[in-house]
Amino acid sequence: MSKSFTCCSLLCLLFAFHGFSQEQKWDSTYRPDIYPSKVAMFRSFEHSKKDIVFLGNSITFWGEWAELLRSKHIKNRGIPGDMTFGVLERLDEVIDGQPAKVFILIGINDIARGVPDSIILSNYERMIERIKTGSPRTKIFFQTMLPTNSSFNKLTTHYHKEEHIKQVNEGLKKMAAVQRIGLIDLYAVFADVDGSLIKNLTFDGVHLTKEGYYKWVALLKQGNYIP
Amino acid sequence: MSKSFTCCSLLCLLFAFHGFSQEQKWDSTYRPDIYPSKVAMFRSFEHSKKDIVFLGNSITFWGEWAELLRSKHIKNRGIPGDMTFGVLERLDEVIDGQPAKVFILIGINDIARGVPDSIILSNYERMIERIKTGSPRTKIFFQTMLPTNSSFNKLTTHYHKEEHIKQVNEGLKKMAAVQRIGLIDLYAVFADVDGSLIKNLTFDGVHLTKEGYYKWVALLKQGNYIP
Repeated sequence: MSKSFTCCSLLCLLFAFHGFSQEQKWDSTYRPDIYPSKVAMFRSFEHSKKDIVFLGNSITFWGEWAELLRSKHIKNRGIPGDMTFGVLERLDEVIDGQPAKVFILIGINDIARGVPDSIILSNYERMIERIKTGSPRTKIFFQTMLPTNSSFNKLTTHYHKEEHIKQVNEGLKKMAAVQRIGLIDLYAVFADVDGSLIKNLTFDGVHLTKEGYYKWVALLKQGNYIP
Repeated sequence: MSKSFTCCSLLCLLFAFHGFSQEQKWDSTYRPDIYPSKVAMFRSFEHSKKDIVFLGNSITFWGEWAELLRSKHIKNRGIPGDMTFGVLERLDEVIDGQPAKVFILIGINDIARGVPDSIILSNYERMIERIKTGSPRTKIFFQTMLPTNSSFNKLTTHYHKEEHIKQVNEGLKKMAAVQRIGLIDLYAVFADVDGSLIKNLTFDGVHLTKEGYYKWVALLKQGNYIP
């Protein structure tokens, strides 16, 4: 009994250590300089039940959502370099605010860093679970990951990950259906015939131009996700 | 007569070429990737005569001004890496909007790139002239340049430029008095006894933490610059 207990403890420790070392590799942002300050600012702001939160990485961050959608209720909660781990870490700020809606686009930095698709999807599961529990009136919308375009030759770690992007997007669609949450298929309208991000919608193959943001806005309005 | 005319023309050409080559060196942003797209977005947005514009570089950009000041009229027109040349280039967007107020903080990237203090100040003069002419009802506020703090050892091209910062700030104060425009002395409240940016107000010796932005906000409210 004591022997098997020790053996079991050792195994647990091994797993814990394995998990820990993996997280150490994955859970840090590309921008440790600005991250804590940005999150601290978010936490300091007034929240409203009318808030519409755009949550994600640099792709969300670079959009002036309040101006694009002409609403003071829109809150930009994008942070450059963020990953699913980062979103989970700061999700309490969103949940505490009890927003009306939250639009999530995250994962390309996870993929660029080699986080397995299954881990990204399980992080998405955790997001749903925590928002549903902590802020049950909040409507959750997933947005499928955008394709990339390697012809810009700039963000090389983000390119040529088509299979992963498709895999995660398929997982998101299934999850959204099962969990009965909103799903906005950005990928479908941002990909060209070859599955690359349409050239005039991006300036580096990952981030969006003005045309890209307005295409996104049109999709949100078309689906009546935003009045 | 003809000879002196040719000589004069040649001299003019020489000066023009000299000016041009200098501008070629100076007038480009640190972020040519995002700059055109960002400016195009600004130009596409709805403007209002109630707008309060925060115009500048990354220091302005990273502040969530609409949330910090709890007003939908606040427009963030900061672009990372921008310089006085860039602000002049895109000033028409601000002027066309005929905003109520414009708060300008720009120059540290010019200094980091070796633009002479006199050129920076003359660019400021051009800003005033153009805003006063194109949007006479707009109240202009200069904000003195922040000190830097070299102990962070990150943005090395921006450090150890104290003399230039002080020189430009003195120039700005005089210009503001002569031109009868507002002057908010950020430097005075952000510098420690040694003339460095107070340590807990920055995360890299140039950009501000949450505490930094709230200090700035307090100053704006204290002086009744923003209701």
